[in-house]
Amino acid sequence: MSRMLSEHQLCFIISRVRMSFKATCLLLSVLSSVLGNVLDNRVDDFWSELCSLPPGLRREIQSYGPIVEKIIEKTTKDFKGETWRSLSEFVDKFGPRMSGSQSLEDSIDYMVDQMSKAGLDAYTEEATVPNWKRGFEAATIISPRKTNLPILGLGSSVGTVAEGIKGDVVVVETFDELEALPDSAVTGKIVVFAQKWESYGKTVKYRSSGSSVAAKKGAVAVLIRSVTPFSLGTLHTGDQDYEEGVNKIPAAAITVEDAMMLLRMFRRGEKIVIHICMDDKDLGLTKSRNTIGELKGRKKDSSVVVVSGHLDSWDVGVGAMDDGGGTFISWNAVKFLKAMGLQPRRTIRAILWTGEEQGYWGARSYQANHSRNEIEEFNFFIESDIGTFMP
Amino acid sequence: MSRMLSEHQLCFIISRVRMSFKATCLLLSVLSSVLGNVLDNRVDDFWSELCSLPPGLRREIQSYGPIVEKIIEKTTKDFKGETWRSLSEFVDKFGPRMSGSQSLEDSIDYMVDQMSKAGLDAYTEEATVPNWKRGFEAATIISPRKTNLPILGLGSSVGTVAEGIKGDVVVVETFDELEALPDSAVTGKIVVFAQKWESYGKTVKYRSSGSSVAAKKGAVAVLIRSVTPFSLGTLHTGDQDYEEGVNKIPAAAITVEDAMMLLRMFRRGEKIVIHICMDDKDLGLTKSRNTIGELKGRKKDSSVVVVSGHLDSWDVGVGAMDDGGGTFISWNAVKFLKAMGLQPRRTIRAILWTGEEQGYWGARSYQANHSRNEIEEFNFFIESDIGTFMP
Repeated sequence: MSRMLSEHQLCFIISRVRMSFKATCLLLSVLSSVLGNVLDNRVDDFWSELCSLPPGLRREIQSYGPIVEKIIEKTTKDFKGETWRSLSEFVDKFGPRMSGSQSLEDSIDYMVDQMSKAGLDAYTEEATVPNWKRGFEAATIISPRKTNLPILGLGSSVGTVAEGIKGDVVVVETFDELEALPDSAVTGKIVVFAQKWESYGKTVKYRSSGSSVAAKKGAVAVLIRSVTPFSLGTLHTGDQDYEEGVNKIPAAAITVEDAMMLLRMFRRGEKIVIHICMDDKDLGLTKSRNTIGELKGRKKDSSVVVVSGHLDSWDVGVGAMDDGGGTFISWNAVKFLKAMGLQPRRTIRAILWTGEEQGYWGARSYQANHSRNEIEEFNFFIESDIGTFMP
Repeated sequence: MSRMLSEHQLCFIISRVRMSFKATCLLLSVLSSVLGNVLDNRVDDFWSELCSLPPGLRREIQSYGPIVEKIIEKTTKDFKGETWRSLSEFVDKFGPRMSGSQSLEDSIDYMVDQMSKAGLDAYTEEATVPNWKRGFEAATIISPRKTNLPILGLGSSVGTVAEGIKGDVVVVETFDELEALPDSAVTGKIVVFAQKWESYGKTVKYRSSGSSVAAKKGAVAVLIRSVTPFSLGTLHTGDQDYEEGVNKIPAAAITVEDAMMLLRMFRRGEKIVIHICMDDKDLGLTKSRNTIGELKGRKKDSSVVVVSGHLDSWDVGVGAMDDGGGTFISWNAVKFLKAMGLQPRRTIRAILWTGEEQGYWGARSYQANHSRNEIEEFNFFIESDIGTFMP
């Protein structure tokens, strides 16, 4: 669930761009050939700004043409399929890599080893990450028809009491609709948000803050229509936050289909009762690591170019798209330059973030550790987290 | 899972067509306007054959133009949304309607009531249907990485012994690939069919007969890639048959994603071990009913026109598409004619089949009961089971 996050991070990145491009352009050529048509509008806007360069600089960039051609040719021929193959081997080997899991830490060790084997300078830097654990999760519609209701707890959600929460249900499509109800119509009830899909940015607020909005009206739990434009009975988890001082109530996703069914039932005036059991637990913070592989530049006093993706994932998929793809195209860009025997002017640093999904925890630790030398250290900073496609 | 079935049934239907069209054309006009662009190529071929009619008959059909216009107008204006509304209320009320379930029998009673209320002559005819019950089903990949493997037993599958079946895995993409292996490479193992999607007709054979093909080579269980061109971790059940005399082994579907992962692991030479537990049971045959609603024709000695869909569904969805849509457009075509006060020349009979998903059991019972008077009784016979779309 990273589109929102990457937009956020892209702003962070853009603020760190300085207009000296020499080594960077090499890298961007590799990246853009690997990324193909993945770049979305936000990046296009960014790109068009970058390209209003003075004529002298443009000519200098153009002079790198032959080497760029060579990199593209090597990447799309000799290295063809390598990123895909290594990514699929990686996700098959480690599966989900949730913050706080052994699997994430094992995958970090593996990546350090892979980076070393590729001849990069590989190391890790400690980072603090959340350790929220999904437990047993189940729900049942008791009325008007007894049936199983598949749910998926949202990251950071509290669990229910052991016997679960059984309650009457209020179904709304918008926050405004909920606010318009008297508190007495919501108090002690389970609120279902059956919001329409608009866009990730517009719709995700129901997942992010639905629990707090409903808790303030007296709700005892919330169920949120999965934030997706397309569903085959598909449950999407993702992060959510409790507002300071608001009663923490359990929050879980339901499928688009079930949300629409509950909305139809509610609008027909049928009495809906749902029973929710969730054994999710927040175990506080724990230690993890950002994984770093460098290709040293030949200009000793120069700042570094950073290409990055995040290694952690949610626990209910294998994180091949989010963000295995971003991770592997990022570090393979450096690996391929090394394999070609090229040495860039500036150091190129691949960073595989930890703890991204639950709120950029790896990036935050990194920022805290590097903020003192930020201007001196970084030349260009990019994270690929907007999805990758078949090669 | 009905495309195959409906093709089958369409052949059955076409064999019952006789070339006297008068009342029928009225009905087909209604149906085609309701069906919209649902009709696929098979039906187009059928249609083009029908339309090679003698000029006199064509002129007669054309003379029904005004009444056809009136039906279309009424259906698309006054009755607009009614089929959708009543279908959604129906599926929300009854959910899955599996052969042998109380829910199916309750939904039959409800439909008889709805038909009576609409002024049709409503009744049921007894039919024999299977009573296969899904029990607890679970699987785990033990090696190379311990992880849950979502499965969905195929209709008629036997269960495993209580402690489950644990076995090494052989993954193949085709029957030929399996046949080419020595029996010793398959005996005692779990076979995974990771067949490519081609089309429903070409791909479904792995689901229908995969268990028998694998059992003959000595396999102890089969897991079949769900028969779908598109997956979001989506499990598809469906019917399967055991060949006479072949050892009955458990058969379940896995997701496209897991099938592809297992194939990648197998091709890398990794040792795969899976543990499968299935408590599915075949309880033999039981009684159900075909549900029938008639709009009596004014020509007393005429045979009838049948429009039909099937009321039963699999147990893991609500059967809104397969075949709630077909059922509701079929019987609503008759309901709307009645509501308009029209009386056709021939009797129009809506039949809502029972026990279709597990092998046309309702249709078979009906055929057996009506075969004596088949030529006299039926004028035209159609089942809508190729999917319906948003109105």
